[in-house]
This record gives sequence, C-alpha cells and structure tokens, in this order.
Amino acid sequence: MPLLVRFLGTAASRPTVERGVSAISLTREGETLLFDCGEGTQRQMMRYGVSFALSDVFFTHVHSDHLLGITGLLRTMALQGRTEPLRLWTPRSTAKTLRQCINIGGERTTFPVEICELEAGSSVKRGEDYRIDTFAVDHRGTASLGYAIVEEERRGRFNPDLARELGIPEGPLWGRIHRGEPIMLDDGRVIESSVLVGERRRGRRIVITGDTRPCDGTLAAAQDADLLIHESTFADEEGARAQETGHSTAREAAEIALKAGVRRLVLTHISARYSRDTRDLEQEARSVFPNTLIARDGTEIELALTEELADTPS
Amino acid sequence: MPLLVRFLGTAASRPTVERGVSAISLTREGETLLFDCGEGTQRQMMRYGVSFALSDVFFTHVHSDHLLGITGLLRTMALQGRTEPLRLWTPRSTAKTLRQCINIGGERTTFPVEICELEAGSSVKRGEDYRIDTFAVDHRGTASLGYAIVEEERRGRFNPDLARELGIPEGPLWGRIHRGEPIMLDDGRVIESSVLVGERRRGRRIVITGDTRPCDGTLAAAQDADLLIHESTFADEEGARAQETGHSTAREAAEIALKAGVRRLVLTHISARYSRDTRDLEQEARSVFPNTLIARDGTEIELALTEELADTPS
Repeated sequence: MPLLVRFLGTAASRPTVERGVSAISLTREGETLLFDCGEGTQRQMMRYGVSFALSDVFFTHVHSDHLLGITGLLRTMALQGRTEPLRLWTPRSTAKTLRQCINIGGERTTFPVEICELEAGSSVKRGEDYRIDTFAVDHRGTASLGYAIVEEERRGRFNPDLARELGIPEGPLWGRIHRGEPIMLDDGRVIESSVLVGERRRGRRIVITGDTRPCDGTLAAAQDADLLIHESTFADEEGARAQETGHSTAREAAEIALKAGVRRLVLTHISARYSRDTRDLEQEARSVFPNTLIARDGTEIELALTEELADTPS
Repeated sequence: MPLLVRFLGTAASRPTVERGVSAISLTREGETLLFDCGEGTQRQMMRYGVSFALSDVFFTHVHSDHLLGITGLLRTMALQGRTEPLRLWTPRSTAKTLRQCINIGGERTTFPVEICELEAGSSVKRGEDYRIDTFAVDHRGTASLGYAIVEEERRGRFNPDLARELGIPEGPLWGRIHRGEPIMLDDGRVIESSVLVGERRRGRRIVITGDTRPCDGTLAAAQDADLLIHESTFADEEGARAQETGHSTAREAAEIALKAGVRRLVLTHISARYSRDTRDLEQEARSVFPNTLIARDGTEIELALTEELADTPS
C-alpha cells in the first residue's frame, strides 16, 4: 500500500503568496499523521484533501511558523463535533508553549487533547507495523527533534504456486509456514519456511528534519532512508546566514543525503527570497545529489512498498 | 481620494478552500487599518497587496476566527525589523486573551504593542479628518463591538475662477475665505465666505458589524452610511440557527440596511455551507435591499469622495 507524503506548507519563517508555513502530512494505510502545523495548515489540509480524522500531530519545535496553526485546527475539529482524543507530540520542555497556544480564547472544546513531550532518541511505537523514532537536530539550541517514520521489516513473500506443487493444503499450514515455522505434512515430509518464503522485506523509512544545521543526528537517522525531507532555507550565497540562524543550505542538505545514502531528497522550508524561483537551490543541491526535488505547497510524494529486497523462491 | 475596503477573509467560524476567516482592511489616504485578524490574514494581505505598515488593528471580538492571525502577523512584522509601535483595539475585558495570543512562544519582538480596551459608544479620534466610533452589537453576550469609520465634514468647495473675477489676489486671503472667514479687500469691499465656498461636504461613513444578531446598535450606527458591512452567516433556511448562535441571516442584514438608509450593503462572514454558492444569500438579501453584494476573499470596494452635497457657487 503506498505511503503518501503531502507538503502543506513549504515556506521558512513567514508565508509568501506562493507558500504557507511548515506542515507535512503523511498518510499510511488510511491513517494520517501531521508533522508541524504552521498558521493556515487547516486550510491547506482542506485545499489538498488531507483528512481531519487524524490522531497525532508531531512538532519538530515550537517556533511560531511551525506551531500557530494548531489552535485553529483544534477549533475547527471542535466545530465538527470531534470526540476522539488528539495527541500532540513535542520536544522536551515545550509542552507549556503548546498548552498556551491551544488554550487561547478558552472556546469550547469537545475532545481531550494530550500533550506528550519526547526526548531525542525515544521512539513512539505504532502497532506492530511501524514506529516513529526521534533524533536530535541542531537549531541554535532550540528544543528540536527530527522524526523518522520507520516501518518494521515485513515477512518475506510467500510462494503459493510452489506450496501447491509440494502438496501443502491451503489453510492454517500456509499461515504457519509464512510466519517462519517449519511444518510436517501427513506423509512425514518436513518443509522449512525458507523453501516457500522469501527473505524478510525491509520497511520504508522517511525522515523529516524540521529546522536544523546539517548534523550527525540527521545523518544517522537518514541511513538508507527511502525519503529524506530536509530543510533548505537558503542557497550558497547565504551560507553564512544559514550558519548564524541555525538553518541549512540546499547544498548542505544534499551532502547529508549523499552521505546517508538515501534514495530521494525533498527540500522544504524555503526562504521567501526563493519562494517563486527555486532554481539556485535546485542546481546547488542536484550538483551534489541528483535525485532532489524542491517541494512546493501541494507536492505529493508517493512511496511504493519496497520490493527490491524480496527474494521470491522459484 | 478614494477609500478602499478589501475583504481578506469572508468565511464564518472556519476557513474553507475558497474563503479565509475574518479580516477586512481599509485604506484611506495612504493609511491602512485592519479590522479583525483571523488565521491566515498575513498571507491574505500579501495576496491582495495590503501594506504591513499599519499602526492599528481593531477587533470586533476575540473569538478564534477573528483573532488567531494576529500572532503570525506580529511575528512577521518583527522579522521585517519593524520598530514602530502597533496598537490593538479590542472590546472591554478582552485584552487578556489578546495578550495571551500575541505572547505565544515568546519569540523576539522588535516593537512595542499596545492593547487598548474600548467601551461601546466610545470614539477613537484620528487626526482632524476622521474618527472611529464603536457601537454595541448583540452576539450572545460575547464582549463585542461594531465599528463605524466616520469622516468629519469637509470644507465646501472653493471657487477659484470667481475669486479671480472678483479681484481677490491668490494667496493667504484665499485660505482665509476657504476656512469660512469674511475678508476685506483693499478697496473696502467685504466678501463673505459663502460667496466663494460651497456648503460643507459630508464625510464618508463605513460601518462594520462583526458578528451579531440584527440589532439597534447597528441600526443607529448605520444611519445614512455609505457602506454597511454586515455579517450574514446564514440563509433563511437556517434562521433558527442564526438566532441560537447569535448570527444574522442575509435577509436580516438587508432589513437593517433598508431601515438605516445605507447606500450600499456588503455581506460577509459566510457559513461554509454557502462558501461556493451564495445565490440563496444574495437573492434573499436583494429581495429586501437591492444594492447588496456578497463579499468574496479579495473583493475590493472603492468609495469615492461624496460630492453630491457640494454646492459650488457659480
């Protein structure tokens, strides 16, 4: 099942006519997660068809351009009569700011909101299927986290044709052998799982940096990632400013992508200076890492299941 | 000089794909005022070319959909290095909410923000030229104000051709006579001002209701207004809901416009139900008051100087 990443806001610091401030949605098997929620995110969700029936919002940090949209989103959820709880995940020591933000105006709320602080290095388990790992980033000392959405390895591919050929009756035995157990047939033959089931298949890995200088935390988290979403506020010409303000240039983001061996790099958090014309960012990043895209508001990235490692027995 | 009203957000309660939440800008002789500042207002200002160099924001009330955009607007002003003070005007007992809102996240501010509470019936004088009157509206007991932008009467039109014909030398005498003083010429003739200056000309009057049931406060403030901007959340079919929620139907707004004898009615604060198709609202309002427009985001209303009452002496 494809995993869909939608860029709802791709501007740095302040919106422009073309770009809203930071927000990214991720949809996986009918479940939607939101990463950051800048001003105007609820309207971008409407515009780009992102479900409001989500349970979790993850904040990379609580600077205004990543935060201010949560209040309006919650108000609209309440207007819609939502009763399901909503969880907000946020870096250590930032829950208070988030709490202030969602309590503004004291309007009626119809559902519980839980705020959970996360330490860098912690992991949020999402059922058996996947988890969200956090990692430290480097944004001028601001309490900040990057997030890695990591699918667990999946069982290898089962070969039903071979199973039938070997005379294994369709039913519970198929399930047991797919789960890795050896089975004994009525005629005494023992069939090892590996005969019928390919190698376990790696899950997908998507990494979202939030605001950061290029850093080791991202490098480690992004190893072999299918998709690295890295901030890229500036072009080379503003390299010094990137350093001063705790941001990255497009080239620096591309260098991380190259070192980490990711499959695809998408750049976001674009300074107003490049809002309309991202050619400098694109050229500088692609000179280092060719498979780079500069996100626009509304950009969708679909990640198919990774099948390359599946070794279907013949 | 024309006075320009721009509708930056025309949705009720929550944004839609087509409409942002409440904000209206008014530009008069190079000065910009903002009335309400819902989420996303700063981006709407960029989209519709409204200056950020404004000194005053007026809040009709502090419900989220009229309020939440102020935080992001202030953050962007700070990013732009603003140093000029900004004044926020708001109804009695709401300064605290506004203060919470603008302090979120505690980011660096570069300019002073003054919050001034206003009582219904008070008036904010704007130089010699115009003032902003406040009036009580009726929004389910919420601390709320309507605003009337009222230009003072202007001097009558001076007739330079006649002045020359009468042999009055161009210079200080012209100014004195325009200001209403009689003058004596060197030959002993006394010229009364009324010979050369027409009747004083009425200023323009624009009335903005914010959220309200149809009410006497609006009716009084809107007497002979050039423009009444009235909320119109619902159509007739939701008349009961309008009553329950403290809002108005399009027809009710039109009835106020008719009774007050306004020149033009513009309806805003449109429920999501009518966001795309406002025909019901339009028909119901126009059946009562034909000169009605339903605002869309980006609608501009230009009010020329009222010259009808000028009586230029011949």
